[in-house]
Parts: sequence; C-alpha cells; structure tokens
Amino acid sequence: MQTPEIAKLGHFGLVTTDLEKSLWFFKEVIGLEETEVKDGVHYLRAWGDFEHHTMYVRAGDEPHVDHIAWRTKRAEDVDAFAKNLEESGVEVRWVTEGAEAGQGKAFRFELPSGHTQEIYFEMEKTLASAESRSVLKNQSHKSWARGVSPRRIDHVNLLTSLLANEVADFLQEKLGFKLRECVQLPDGNLVGAWLSVTPLVHDIAISHDPFAPTTHQVHHVSYWLDNAQDLLRAADILKENGIFFKGPGKHGISQAMYIYAIDPGSGLRVELFTNGYLIFEPDWEPIVWSVDEMDIGFTYWGDQMDNKPENNPTISAQEKKLIRG
Amino acid sequence: MQTPEIAKLGHFGLVTTDLEKSLWFFKEVIGLEETEVKDGVHYLRAWGDFEHHTMYVRAGDEPHVDHIAWRTKRAEDVDAFAKNLEESGVEVRWVTEGAEAGQGKAFRFELPSGHTQEIYFEMEKTLASAESRSVLKNQSHKSWARGVSPRRIDHVNLLTSLLANEVADFLQEKLGFKLRECVQLPDGNLVGAWLSVTPLVHDIAISHDPFAPTTHQVHHVSYWLDNAQDLLRAADILKENGIFFKGPGKHGISQAMYIYAIDPGSGLRVELFTNGYLIFEPDWEPIVWSVDEMDIGFTYWGDQMDNKPENNPTISAQEKKLIRG
Amino acid sequence: MQTPEIAKLGHFGLVTTDLEKSLWFFKEVIGLEETEVKDGVHYLRAWGDFEHHTMYVRAGDEPHVDHIAWRTKRAEDVDAFAKNLEESGVEVRWVTEGAEAGQGKAFRFELPSGHTQEIYFEMEKTLASAESRSVLKNQSHKSWARGVSPRRIDHVNLLTSLLANEVADFLQEKLGFKLRECVQLPDGNLVGAWLSVTPLVHDIAISHDPFAPTTHQVHHVSYWLDNAQDLLRAADILKENGIFFKGPGKHGISQAMYIYAIDPGSGLRVELFTNGYLIFEPDWEPIVWSVDEMDIGFTYWGDQMDNKPENNPTISAQEKKLIRG
Amino acid sequence: MQTPEIAKLGHFGLVTTDLEKSLWFFKEVIGLEETEVKDGVHYLRAWGDFEHHTMYVRAGDEPHVDHIAWRTKRAEDVDAFAKNLEESGVEVRWVTEGAEAGQGKAFRFELPSGHTQEIYFEMEKTLASAESRSVLKNQSHKSWARGVSPRRIDHVNLLTSLLANEVADFLQEKLGFKLRECVQLPDGNLVGAWLSVTPLVHDIAISHDPFAPTTHQVHHVSYWLDNAQDLLRAADILKENGIFFKGPGKHGISQAMYIYAIDPGSGLRVELFTNGYLIFEPDWEPIVWSVDEMDIGFTYWGDQMDNKPENNPTISAQEKKLIRG
Repeated sequence: MQTPEIAKLGHFGLVTTDLEKSLWFFKEVIGLEETEVKDGVHYLRAWGDFEHHTMYVRAGDEPHVDHIAWRTKRAEDVDAFAKNLEESGVEVRWVTEGAEAGQGKAFRFELPSGHTQEIYFEMEKTLASAESRSVLKNQSHKSWARGVSPRRIDHVNLLTSLLANEVADFLQEKLGFKLRECVQLPDGNLVGAWLSVTPLVHDIAISHDPFAPTTHQVHHVSYWLDNAQDLLRAADILKENGIFFKGPGKHGISQAMYIYAIDPGSGLRVELFTNGYLIFEPDWEPIVWSVDEMDIGFTYWGDQMDNKPENNPTISAQEKKLIRG
Repeated sequence: MQTPEIAKLGHFGLVTTDLEKSLWFFKEVIGLEETEVKDGVHYLRAWGDFEHHTMYVRAGDEPHVDHIAWRTKRAEDVDAFAKNLEESGVEVRWVTEGAEAGQGKAFRFELPSGHTQEIYFEMEKTLASAESRSVLKNQSHKSWARGVSPRRIDHVNLLTSLLANEVADFLQEKLGFKLRECVQLPDGNLVGAWLSVTPLVHDIAISHDPFAPTTHQVHHVSYWLDNAQDLLRAADILKENGIFFKGPGKHGISQAMYIYAIDPGSGLRVELFTNGYLIFEPDWEPIVWSVDEMDIGFTYWGDQMDNKPENNPTISAQEKKLIRG
Repeated sequence: MQTPEIAKLGHFGLVTTDLEKSLWFFKEVIGLEETEVKDGVHYLRAWGDFEHHTMYVRAGDEPHVDHIAWRTKRAEDVDAFAKNLEESGVEVRWVTEGAEAGQGKAFRFELPSGHTQEIYFEMEKTLASAESRSVLKNQSHKSWARGVSPRRIDHVNLLTSLLANEVADFLQEKLGFKLRECVQLPDGNLVGAWLSVTPLVHDIAISHDPFAPTTHQVHHVSYWLDNAQDLLRAADILKENGIFFKGPGKHGISQAMYIYAIDPGSGLRVELFTNGYLIFEPDWEPIVWSVDEMDIGFTYWGDQMDNKPENNPTISAQEKKLIRG
Repeated sequence: MQTPEIAKLGHFGLVTTDLEKSLWFFKEVIGLEETEVKDGVHYLRAWGDFEHHTMYVRAGDEPHVDHIAWRTKRAEDVDAFAKNLEESGVEVRWVTEGAEAGQGKAFRFELPSGHTQEIYFEMEKTLASAESRSVLKNQSHKSWARGVSPRRIDHVNLLTSLLANEVADFLQEKLGFKLRECVQLPDGNLVGAWLSVTPLVHDIAISHDPFAPTTHQVHHVSYWLDNAQDLLRAADILKENGIFFKGPGKHGISQAMYIYAIDPGSGLRVELFTNGYLIFEPDWEPIVWSVDEMDIGFTYWGDQMDNKPENNPTISAQEKKLIRG
C-alpha cells in the first residue's frame, strides 16, 4: 500500500460564545462568503477557496477551535491514515458522513498536545451563486465584495505548553509534514516549529509557551491576501470597525507580512498574511534560529505581537485572550 | 523502483548576440545577481533564489534559449528519468559534470517540439557574498539592491507551431506534469496549455501559434515579484531605461498580473509576474477555456500582448522578435 | 476690491437617462456616499470629501453634465466674479439659493465653449451619520465601505471641437487659473491644456478633438485614490461588475496613474486617478509638449485610451459614447 | 505693498559629525541625488524636486540642522518679509548671495524657539545630467535609481520645550501659516501644531516636549513617497542596511503613513511619508484633538514612535538621539 499523504490544510471549526458578533466579524469585516447554514452551523470560505468551506462557526458555551481538518491526496489515504494511526496507538473517531456539511468520510484524533485534527478527502466543491460568482471560471466568488476580502485559507498556528518538538515530531512521523524553519533552545528542543506538506513555509506551526493554560491552545488561524498593500487596507477596515489588532509587520521566519486581529465574538486570533517565500527545493534543510536570533525571526520590522502576554503589563486584555484548540 | 519526479523548474540558458546589452538588462535593469562567471558564461539568480543560478547568459551567433532545466525530487530520479525516456525512444545526451557551473550529473533531451530540456538534481546552493547577503538567514541576497529586483524564477512558456497538446501530452506522460488550465479548439486539440508539478498554476506553458517560424520558439521566461505594485515600479524602471514592454495587465488564466519586457540584447521576452492562485487540491480538474473565452482568459484587464504579431500591422518590431528555444 | 479667487473644484451635476443604473454605478461600484435625496436629485460625495456633495445625479431625457461648480476663496468673491464676468460681456444667471441642496448663493455662466460653470462659496459641510462616520475626526466617512472607494473628487476634463487655448485663455484671464502643462501645435495653438488654481497639476483640463460633435462635451470627471494599487483593485471590481474601462496606465503629463470607466447609465467617463506630482513652485513655467511628444505625454506606459474614437474601428461602442457638458 | 507670502518649504541644512556615513545614508540608502559639491557642502534633492537642492549636508563638530528655508511667492516678498520682521523686533541676517550654492538673495532669522529659518525666492532649477534625467520633461531625474527613492521633500517637524502655540502663533502672525490640526491642553495651550501655507496638512509642525534639552530641537524632516507600499519596500531597505527605524504606521492627524528612520551619521530623524489628505477648503477650521484623543491622533495603527523617549526604558539609544535645530 502506498504511503498516505496529506495534500493541504482544509478547514477549522470555531465555537463562539457570541455567534452574532463572530458572524459579523468573519462575514462583514473579514468578508468571507457563507456557503451554507445547517443545524446552526455557518459554513464560510474566502473568494478564492475551492472547497465547500474553509471554516465554520457555531455557538457554544466556551470559545474554542473544535477541530482542524486536513485533506489527503487520494480518497484511500483516509483509511490508510486511520489504520497507521491506530496501529501506533492513536485513538481514531470516525465522523458521521455529512454531519459536517459538504464533507464525506472523515475521522478525528488528537495530537500529543490534545489538539483535535480531522482527516478527510471528499468535500463538495460548491459553486457560488450566479450573482456572487466571478466572471473568471477559475475563481469561486467575485473578489472585493465586502470587508478585508482575503483570497484563501493559509495556515494554523497551535500554542502549547509542551515543547514544540513534541508536536512537530508527531506531525513529521505520522502525517508526513516537513520541518521548514524552527527556533531551537541550546539543548536542542524547539520552542517554535513551522511545518508543511506544500511549498508554503508552513501549513501548520507549533508555538511553545510555558505559561499557556493548557497544552492545546490555538495561537491563530490565517487567511491569505495577495498584496502587502491589501494588509494596509485591512488595517483601516479593522480600525474603523473597532477590531483589536497588532501589526502590520513583517516576519523574518517565512518573510511574510502580518496583521493579527481578534474576533470579538470568540477571542480567536486571525492572522492576515501575505508575501513570503515558497519552498520548491526537495532537499530543503530546516532554517534553525537560535533564541538569540528570535527577535528578527519573529519581527523583521513593524508592529510586534508580544508572544508572552502574561509577562507584559501593557498588553491589552483582548490580546491576552487565549482560545483553546 | 519509485516513479521519478520533477520537483521544480531550475534554470534556463540564454545565448545572446549582444552580451554586454543582455548583461546590462538582466543585471542592472532586472536586477539579478551574478553568482559566477566561468568560460564566458554569466550565471545569474534573483535575490530569493536558493540555487547557484536560475539562468545563465553567454554570447553566440544566434539568440536562443539553449536549454531549460528541471530539478528532480531525488538524486536517483536523474538516472530513472534517463532510463524511462530512452526506453520510450527519446535520445538522451549526458552533460559533463561541472560543464555548467555549480551543477552535478545531468542530461539533456528534446521535447517533441524540439525544445531542449535538462534533468538534474545536484546543484550548489551558493551563499551570497558577505556584503550582499541578507540579514535574514532564509534569504540569499538583500532585496531591492538594483533595478526591478524580482524574488525568484517562476516559469517558462514555449511557443510552437505544433498543437499545444502534442507537447503537453509528452510533459504529462513522460515527466509527470499535471494539466492545470488550457484553451481548447472545438475539435478537442489545445492551442494553449498550462502545466505544473508544483502548486503554481504553471511551471511551464505551451503556446500554439500556426505562424511561429519553427516548432521550438520561446514565448517567454518569467520571474516572480511579491506585489502587484512592484510591477508598476518595474514599469517605471523599464520605461526610463528605454526597454520595450507590454502591460501591466492581469491574466484570467492563472489570475496573475504581468509585464512582458524584451531583453534588448537577445530579444528574449521576460515576463514579470505576480499574484495569481495556487492549486493545492489533489483532484484538480483542468480549467478548459474555449476559443470564445480566450480573450478574458489571456487578459482579464490591462494592456494586452497580441499573441499573433504577424497579423498585427501596428505591433512593434521588438515585440515581433521571436527567440528560438 | 481684492481680486476674486477660485479655491477649488466643488462638484458637478450629472443628468442620466437611466437613474437606477447610474446610482448603482456611483454608489455600489464606485462607492460614493449619498448625503441627501431631494426633489429626485441624489447628492453624493467620496469618504474624504468635506462638502455636502461633490456630484449629484438626476434623471433626464439626454445624458449630460449640467454644470461644473467652483468654490471661491472668500464669500465676497462670488459677487466679485459675477460683476467681473458681466463687465466682460459674459451672461450670468443667479441660482435660487438652496435649489441645489446644501448650497448658498451661486451663479452660473458658460465658458466660450458653452460648458456651464457655477461659482459659489457657501456649502454645508455635512457630518456623516453616526454609523458611517470615521473614527477619525478629520475624515468624513469610514473608508473602504463599498466598491472602489475613492478618497475625493480630483478634476474635470472638458472635450471640445474648439482649440484648447480658446477655453484655456478664458480660464486664465477671467478665473485666475494657471496653465501647468499643454500640448502645442506648430502654430502655437493648443490641443490640450491642463490648468489649476491649486498645487494639483490640473483642477480642469481642456481636450481638443476636431471630431467632437459639439464644442461642449465632457471628456471625463475624476476621483482620487491614495495608492496605485487601489487602481488595480478597482480594475478587479469594475471587471467583475461588467463595467467597460480602459487602463490601468500612467500618464506622462501629470505623472499620474489612471483608469477610465464608463457609467453604464449615462455614458459619462469617470477617471480613477492617483500618484502624480504637485506644483508648489510659484514661478512654474508650463510644460509644453509638441505633437510629436504627445504619445509619451498621454501614456507613459499601460493600456491606452484612444483619444479619437471615430478613427478607430476596434474601439468599443461604450468608449465612443460622448457625453455633453 | 502686497502682503508677502510663503510659497513652500524649500530645504534644510544638515551638519553632521560623520559626513561619510550621512552621505551614504542620504545618497545610497534614501537615494537622493547630488546636484553639486561646493566648499565641502553636498547639495541633494529627490528625483521629483525641481530646485537645486532640498537639503545639504556638511561636516561639523555637533550634529544639528543649521537652517530651514522657505521660498516666497514673489521675488519682492523677500525684502518685504525682512522689513516686516525687523519692524516687529526680529533680528534679520542677510546671507551672502551664492554662499549657499544655487541660491540668490536670502536672509535668516530665529523663531521664538531659536530655530533658524531662511527666506529666499531665487534658486536655480538645475537640470539633471543627460544620463540621470527622466524621459519625462516634467520630472527631474529617473525615479527608482537607488535606495528608497522618495519623490520630494515634504515637511519639517520642530521639537521644543516651549508650548507649541508660542511658535505656532509666530508662524501664523508673521509668516502667514494656517493652523490645520492641533493637540490642545485643557487650558487652551497647544502641545502639537500642524501648519501649512499649501494644501498639505503641514509644511511645518511644532511638537512640544517638556523634557526636550533645548527650545530648538528638530523632531524630524520628511520626504514624500507616492504609495504606501513604497514605505514597505523602504522598510526592507532600511533593515537590510542596518538603519534604526520605527514604523510603518499610520497617523490619525494628517491620515498619512510613516516610517521614522535615523541617519546614522548625524542622528537626524527622517520621516518617510505618504498618503494623507489635502486641504482645499478656504474656510478650514483647525481639527482640535484633546490630550485624551492624542493616541489615535498620533497612531491610527501600526508601530509607534514613543514621543517621550526619556520616560521609556526600552527605547533604543538611537531613538533617544535628539538633534538641535
């Protein structure tokens, strides 16, 4: 049997304590399109996303990301991943087909950190309504319809009190991710790890914070925009709508520009992301940053996000909000 | 034995009748960095390229692209590709190791159209000089040092009097490329084909022109910039330096922005390229444009390049120049 | 008595044969804000305009610009201009105060070309609604609320079968405009004239076309955006909404970037405009372009607008539409 | 006699303790053009400046700005200003004609704060060399030749231990400046004042800092770029060249984007500046920000400059450097 492979980040599921506010944030301010509402779950995607959804949002008692989903390369990879994970002692829970709208066969499991992941292949490639459809046949929706208007989902970044390598090792060994960049302690352990299965520098990152309340927080999820200037326009929109955010700035790691905005409904941090480099080299050696080099690694220039909010008396309460994954 | 795989477009070799002018164009106007000069061959790359070179330029009697090179995923894929090609009747010519600076074992062969391709794996990942090196350890050179300053090589586009599918079929069957978008005649033949082994919409495209002087011309080679606005700055630079160009505009196919500039030394058309979409879906169905839909496919908006110069009395002589591949 | 002075371009009045379509174009696609609707007249302005309106649109039998209005430096300049114009034989028609919403004392008169102009000083500086107001106290509305979202009105460009100097001389002698750039025939007459009372290169331009159907057409009106990239975003929006446009490109004259879009209701050409230079030198000598230099003067680079549509068989019917001023 | 008027900010003179480093900063990193070197004074301007120079730099024992120069509307305004100032008790010192290269008749005097100002009208409008000249006849030099490449000088910002109104009142009463925006204490005094004679929000600003070492420091001088994205490119260039800077960010006051970079030779803070609004209304009422509103006034969003370095233990020594004016 062929080694199963992950093709891409698919979507994530968000539970919010204020559904109305989160919907306003994601639909009006960020500008995602709603594909479907089913059983109180709102399925959203960006104008350049091809699948039925790249996130959903639903109401709940405690804000958290209930799962992060990965699409496989082939339909049969779903079973193969399930088998491999079970054989290595990971508990696998099959999801009822169609329970998540648009999605076929899928299962969920936990990373060593406790973050819930999902593996699937089948997903409806929903057409936009005639009205909102692009005049281009390779683009789902008209761009720039509302708000920030990012193109597509980009990556997720998990926050954990574990060392980053405890999660990154699992991602590499069980799921085939490649380590692209990392921040390394003198003892060889990692406090930050950026991994991908695609040429993106990261489809997923692991951020270690010894003060994180659990092993399974979410640092942020991220949507992509095409141009740096689109981030500056986003900053105007966020500010005029009273959204708390940090940035714009540019990372050394990934060379990408960022804004970190807080969903006022759930507290989820959403990174607006652009530029950066792609890794096409098949023999890429991970870029290793020492703790001394972290500053330029995190912020090449621009407005910084403090990575240790509990140590910073001036940081906003909104920025301190940490959502569980 | 594992099926050999292409990882990425590596580089191309340019022969020019006016070396001084071509070097001025690529080094001062476009702003590529010279890694090495050896035996009269100038090896160049962009500031975000990681390999020893992504193009070279040397003097010769007739301007042409002497080869286009593809890097494999694994070292052993070079032999495997050679074996497969020979078995299917394609002539393989081994290149002396080191004859092309920085490069290891490699062979060349012709596409059905006669365009010379090269397959290699080993290539030096040269460090920039201390002076020109970026302060970032994941970036080769300081950006914005000179001229347009693109980030990296992006793709090549071959022009041929053959139908595009005659070349595209070979690329799919022998080299593992996937068809991403195409322009189809009513009889099912293709006049344009965009193919890739990466999530880029195309690493290579095939453009059919019944009036092309041979089966093996080069339509253009392309370098990537991070932002649409970088193209507008490029337009200023090209204009102030007396370079002939078309654009800026935006393609429907690939959704990317373009400027097409002519190297005044060799007549080679160089596309400056940005934005556009990435294909992460493993079950991507090629986007098929009919001949009726070609107009928006080629030009979503902006200054157009006429694809049939011989039919257009107003087109510049510079634009008519077709370089052989 | 002090010489009366024009301070700035105020607004223009548009009559359309398809009010619904023109309102959709200006409010939803361009993204202007509606300050007031009174007697079937819709008063609009951009988010950075400070006056009650910078344009209005109303229904009528023939599409035309019914007047272009100029604000004076001082209240008493209105009377002084009226007196001066009458003394030099120009007929002055006083407008009923408040007939145009928000506006005080004003009169209208015709340029030698027959284009109707208005002189006023008093205009309400309307506050935006609490909801749409910016969080900044120096900005009228939230930016980026809808569509292209330009910042402010910029200039008007009149098309006439007269020589440009016949109108430009009047503007200089009677209204105090300064000639900033021009296109000159060998006999000294002007076919294009760019004039201003502000440091903008032009508040008004005069374009000569011997084939213009009357002496008093409008070539275009123009709104300003802050960044070149905002024009590229505008191109996407226009294309997705089926609006005919030319550009983006960059003028030599004024050094500004442009898109020319057609209001599908009235046929009025609207220029989206950015970058360019300001003239602070008090002893500015007009830049004189010969007819030979016109090409780079009109189009430094990019998609061109043909200035003589009747001579061009390939030009769209929409582009040929000429609106009367 | 007509009231004399200031037309524009002309230039400033910089004295540096490290001429080589300052020249490298202004010529290579910022990318200004050198018009002339005379008596050890280097005369510089941006590619879109029309006068002989908009700054000079020379060696000296203590870094400071030795004067800020204002061009009058008419030649005779120079004498008229001198007369008016002397009559109101201000000491006027005539400058030897030609002592400052390119410049005609001029005199200097001190603001109440002690900042040296110069009034002149005659200045050579030097043509660029054939090589560096733009292909456009309305533009001095080719743009984008080197480094950041701003278009033109924009404004100066004076720092003083005096209340801002003590200087702003003088500028309004003696020199005809208009107050555009200000930050007001509850007692009516101003801690910040932005004034102009042009439609720019400010040609000059006065910043009060009770901890400033003298009454006559320079907060910064500023050069203009056309696009917000040009600032992001500038940030890359500054970072790669080891220049200390704050930003990018966006001011509420002026609505303009900024980067503040430190000349490593003299310690002078240089603001790279773009976007923002223009004031064409002749009856503009100054925008008054209270101390409570200062935060959004100074920083609408982005990386902030701390305005009170002595209170901030984390601020860099470079940022603390205050240059005398």
